[in-house]
Amino acid sequence: MSEKRRGETDLIAHYFAPLASQDASFGLSDDAAFLSPPQGYDLVVTKDLLVADIHFFANDPAGRIAQKALRVNLSDLAAKGAKPYGYLLGLGLPQDWSESWLKDFVDGLKEDQARYDFALFGGDTVKSPDRLTLSVTAFGLVPKGCQIIRRNAQVGDCLYMSGTLGDAALGLLARLGTLPANLDERHKNYLMERYLLPLPRLEMRQCLLDHAHAGMDISDGLLGDAQKMALASETCLHIDVDAVSLSDAARAVLRLEPSLMSLILGGGDDYELLMAIAPDKEEAFLKQAQGLDQKVTKIGAIEQGAGLDLSSSQGWLDGQDMLSFEHF
Amino acid sequence: MSEKRRGETDLIAHYFAPLASQDASFGLSDDAAFLSPPQGYDLVVTKDLLVADIHFFANDPAGRIAQKALRVNLSDLAAKGAKPYGYLLGLGLPQDWSESWLKDFVDGLKEDQARYDFALFGGDTVKSPDRLTLSVTAFGLVPKGCQIIRRNAQVGDCLYMSGTLGDAALGLLARLGTLPANLDERHKNYLMERYLLPLPRLEMRQCLLDHAHAGMDISDGLLGDAQKMALASETCLHIDVDAVSLSDAARAVLRLEPSLMSLILGGGDDYELLMAIAPDKEEAFLKQAQGLDQKVTKIGAIEQGAGLDLSSSQGWLDGQDMLSFEHF
Repeated sequence: MSEKRRGETDLIAHYFAPLASQDASFGLSDDAAFLSPPQGYDLVVTKDLLVADIHFFANDPAGRIAQKALRVNLSDLAAKGAKPYGYLLGLGLPQDWSESWLKDFVDGLKEDQARYDFALFGGDTVKSPDRLTLSVTAFGLVPKGCQIIRRNAQVGDCLYMSGTLGDAALGLLARLGTLPANLDERHKNYLMERYLLPLPRLEMRQCLLDHAHAGMDISDGLLGDAQKMALASETCLHIDVDAVSLSDAARAVLRLEPSLMSLILGGGDDYELLMAIAPDKEEAFLKQAQGLDQKVTKIGAIEQGAGLDLSSSQGWLDGQDMLSFEHF
Repeated sequence: MSEKRRGETDLIAHYFAPLASQDASFGLSDDAAFLSPPQGYDLVVTKDLLVADIHFFANDPAGRIAQKALRVNLSDLAAKGAKPYGYLLGLGLPQDWSESWLKDFVDGLKEDQARYDFALFGGDTVKSPDRLTLSVTAFGLVPKGCQIIRRNAQVGDCLYMSGTLGDAALGLLARLGTLPANLDERHKNYLMERYLLPLPRLEMRQCLLDHAHAGMDISDGLLGDAQKMALASETCLHIDVDAVSLSDAARAVLRLEPSLMSLILGGGDDYELLMAIAPDKEEAFLKQAQGLDQKVTKIGAIEQGAGLDLSSSQGWLDGQDMLSFEHF
């Protein structure tokens, strides 16, 4: 291929400057951005690195790759009750990038910037010879002093999750062609879409600010992430495995292959929220979530002790080693 | 190798939590950091992505790799007159990472955090199968409203640089063994060290805040970066090539191989400052820089027009295409 491609300066001016915030980044004409959070707000910052064929498939549609990189960060912001403010993009382009790929990638960014109302603050573009590498630093705003963090989970809190669990982990299997062959095509497609494109639960933002002691997103699997909340808050997280919320597609998979329950509980890429809610706020929390048309499900409680305490009366835990779930 | 290595949670707790700011990151027990810039200050943010064997050699000492990743970002902060505040680290570890490599890497971070007085706010650790990939987002503080940016260069300003030019680009040649063989070993070592480890000019911080209209760090070569300042400020940057400040080592190289002047002017990794200083502030600027023991050199002026205007009465420009210098 001898397609003529732009140099870095031209590439920034052509593709990225139109995405940029004028206020903070001067249209990307500088190598730094200036942020002045509005009066009464703190900045929340989070960073995720995504590597081709580790966190996404190199041949996924470019726009979806871009959106996944944004959304895994937006999911972290959602878990802190933060409103998206802006982001920095580190783009490591492999040797064989093309102008049409980059255009689709940028269109994906543009679409999600509009959808979630935030802007590009700056970034860096470099060569990454072997594989596409993306680094997003996302900024959000929360009212000053509002810190919904893991360590604030308290004994007696109810444990809630948003949405449904395990769809993305099963979607990855669907993508790899290793789900039971007789699974309905419709379910397969639903799961693959859930793997391709996370849905950050930003609608839950105010609900968390109003009612949650602790919140985090489930990105490394429910069991691994619940363990982290237990560790940070010096509590024990009791999880009733039977109560975990599952999609119709996940239920259909389990009917064919029950042993995949361990993947549902321990696999990653859910980007749902895990929340510790004080019992006296539970009713208001549920009402507010319902008003927002957001599915939330009680899956356990915060107890004295350490680590995880799993229970199931339906036999999900029989003969399974549910506690080995480190992905790195 | 079957060395036992830590999982991600343990790795963060063991190596990175001790580097972290308690205030912002709760000892890395959360997936987001909360920043509340002190009253009267704005945040400056900058991001650089570094890829093994593109931006450093994979077999460079681990501590020096860590410090280079921090310092290329600190150099951006210096150019904005910003005081280092903290950073996020995205760490993409190749398959073959070892505990001893990581320990040295973290020791390098620790050393520079103490040297430049700033803390780790958070980050992300992932697999990067082919090569080490580092993404640093650095935060600095400037007095509210102080924006020393490229676009503010004004016609009539004097153009200054800090330090000496081209040492790192020549150091890379030294490293590759392609400098003239009869160059003094002492010079070779000096240049290689300059490539290995940038010196962010943070001492110049107050001097920039007090006197500079525009500032940027020279990271992609003087000619490329001066072009960017010209573009952003809609001016022409006149550069007197004879005036460019060179180290003894660079002079020694040029005596043996004069054609390397184009590399000195166009090569990258200098991490010196390029500054536009109003003529009526020039005297105070020079006095302050001298008081700080910082070498600054007038290399030209900001003029009406566009792009670069290079001059040399010593023949440096003869027969050279100095204006093709895009690195990406």
